[in-house]
Amino acid sequence: MDRTIRTEPLTAETFAPFGDVIEPRGTSHPINAGMVDRFTDLARLDFADGGRPGISLGLGRPYRLPHRLDLVERHPLGSQAWMPLGPDPFLVVVAPDEGGTPGRPRAFLTAPGQGVNYLRGTWHGVLTPLDRPQSFLIVDRLGPGDNLEEYRFPETWTVKAA
Amino acid sequence: MDRTIRTEPLTAETFAPFGDVIEPRGTSHPINAGMVDRFTDLARLDFADGGRPGISLGLGRPYRLPHRLDLVERHPLGSQAWMPLGPDPFLVVVAPDEGGTPGRPRAFLTAPGQGVNYLRGTWHGVLTPLDRPQSFLIVDRLGPGDNLEEYRFPETWTVKAA
Repeated sequence: MDRTIRTEPLTAETFAPFGDVIEPRGTSHPINAGMVDRFTDLARLDFADGGRPGISLGLGRPYRLPHRLDLVERHPLGSQAWMPLGPDPFLVVVAPDEGGTPGRPRAFLTAPGQGVNYLRGTWHGVLTPLDRPQSFLIVDRLGPGDNLEEYRFPETWTVKAA
Repeated sequence: MDRTIRTEPLTAETFAPFGDVIEPRGTSHPINAGMVDRFTDLARLDFADGGRPGISLGLGRPYRLPHRLDLVERHPLGSQAWMPLGPDPFLVVVAPDEGGTPGRPRAFLTAPGQGVNYLRGTWHGVLTPLDRPQSFLIVDRLGPGDNLEEYRFPETWTVKAA
């Protein structure tokens, strides 16, 4: 099996089975005396009972392409959003679930300003900023329960630029 | 009465009665194979029953100092977080509640990378990026109910740099 994955551009349509692209889209409406254009409800937040939504920050160290991918994870109790606090693109890896383990991964390269929200239970790679450290706002579920499942692929995948 | 307000630096301690400063603070823990330092639970999210948390974007047009302040607002049904998606500082205006109307406002100037979370029901100014347009991630309550109360001061305040 070919274990090379080429990056794809991140678009709301192609990413929809895995989550949401957080970017200005749809119709905005003016708020704050007309000086702010607001794009509302851009992510399918989904938190299991017994927890609560929280805001956190993640300061990520960078990777380089080609990227050797052997680890993915998922959060059975809630969605998880990552919004970059600067314009640098980053790599987004996801995989379909196939009977409890991840299938062939896909790799998306963000455009400047795009963030992502992983749907609850979606297999995804660890945070992979490229070339430079990057900070992210995280919106996910806080509270009791085991919300992390990791999976290590028996063979490494290689993610290369398209 | 002196209607000039001088800006103060934004710190978690001085801002605490009004909300949270979203910035790396406290203890981080490593996630994502040790490549991400996570600072967890940085904002007191508080959403009235009947709604749900949502992620939105706000694209704000800029203001300049001195700023003529005549309008504040508050959200009785939920907290509201604003995180800038770039390093530019912005102006944060809040006011204590005095029997249902806002008292003397205070104005804080953020350091690069700081965001804010207004506590539920806290009087605050409209979004005021300075000098340049700025985009923000918003985390607030979506759903039914009247979640906006505006108040126009009978006399204008002037916000000046410290």
